[in-house]
Amino acid sequence: MRHFEEELDQLRNRLLEMSGLVEDSVYRSVLALSDKDPEQAQRVLKNEAEINRLEIDIDEQATELLTLQQPVATDMRFLTAGIKINHDLERMGDLAVNIVERSLYLMQEPLIDHLVDIPHMANLVRSMVHKSLDAFVRKDPDLARTVLLSDDAVDELRDAIYEDLIAFMEKEPKHVREGVNLMFVARSLERLADHATNIAEDVLFLVQGVDVRHHHVETRE
Amino acid sequence: MRHFEEELDQLRNRLLEMSGLVEDSVYRSVLALSDKDPEQAQRVLKNEAEINRLEIDIDEQATELLTLQQPVATDMRFLTAGIKINHDLERMGDLAVNIVERSLYLMQEPLIDHLVDIPHMANLVRSMVHKSLDAFVRKDPDLARTVLLSDDAVDELRDAIYEDLIAFMEKEPKHVREGVNLMFVARSLERLADHATNIAEDVLFLVQGVDVRHHHVETRE
Repeated sequence: MRHFEEELDQLRNRLLEMSGLVEDSVYRSVLALSDKDPEQAQRVLKNEAEINRLEIDIDEQATELLTLQQPVATDMRFLTAGIKINHDLERMGDLAVNIVERSLYLMQEPLIDHLVDIPHMANLVRSMVHKSLDAFVRKDPDLARTVLLSDDAVDELRDAIYEDLIAFMEKEPKHVREGVNLMFVARSLERLADHATNIAEDVLFLVQGVDVRHHHVETRE
Repeated sequence: MRHFEEELDQLRNRLLEMSGLVEDSVYRSVLALSDKDPEQAQRVLKNEAEINRLEIDIDEQATELLTLQQPVATDMRFLTAGIKINHDLERMGDLAVNIVERSLYLMQEPLIDHLVDIPHMANLVRSMVHKSLDAFVRKDPDLARTVLLSDDAVDELRDAIYEDLIAFMEKEPKHVREGVNLMFVARSLERLADHATNIAEDVLFLVQGVDVRHHHVETRE
């Protein structure tokens, strides 16, 4: 086996590559929806295969480094956080695919012009995803904290979107199927925000050794 | 620190305790829905706090054992699988809470008597959850494989339920809100099945060292 440091570097680079692919998928899935653009959708489906392959490589490499070497505490934290972040990234790739699948259906329908607040929610979530991955790359706890603070705003937007869509479907029952598809897009966006939050928590653990799960970050400050 | 074997035993027991709580939550969340029973719902919410506490304890203990000791390959696999299973279990507890929240709303409404195939799906999923946890406890790869084989049936049931509910809402727009809540129950059940599948995959990895992610198990046999 190569030198431990080289292996760690390769692992770090793979995680960066995976982050890049996931961020690209999230970005394009939202474009596929708002612009009704099937080419963006295809790119997301293409990324998915690559993301799944990388997930397995990263998981195997990180587990092997944990087993065969005796990493010091800092490297240990990086490896365990890396395993978790890897898992979150893979799920985020899946969620982008979910959004794309809904979008491919919605493309065939006359645009529901009041896409309610979904583009707004999508932008907020995309920014959370970007910041969480950036915080990981730059080991920046302050940036990670800003991600945690956005999570409530996403939940509120989701609730408002659900209410809008229910009212819309009650009034226009022939558009129930579109409404349902849009609800599932909002749901996938909310889950993307949850995974970005997980990653931000892992960054805080990685950088500061602070476990903020199941707590609001404010209570720890 | 106590002897490594004692620590492993405690970790195993905590995972068993957590499995028991999660299985109980899934069981009661389905009862809360089908029997409109708020007491079952309360028990699920009570379990949730305990599950979250256990998740952190298990994660910390497993990570510590990985770091401070130099486990042999079998223990290593148990520890890394344990970390993943722990994470899946925590998410399963959340999903049971989601089902309960939908059920608490649906309790106030006149029963949609054709709960479509949701009770059927719920039973199948409950059985998958039970088998995956049992396979983990008993280190039984054959049982784990039966879980993987049920995943497609769950997806088909979910699709059928979605179609039924869309038709129902189109016909009865005043019941859109109930329909939407039932869709989210079906969605949570499907996610529970996904997590049971993850656990079954981890059991196969744990027992046989075979990685079956992103593959159908049949292709490996």
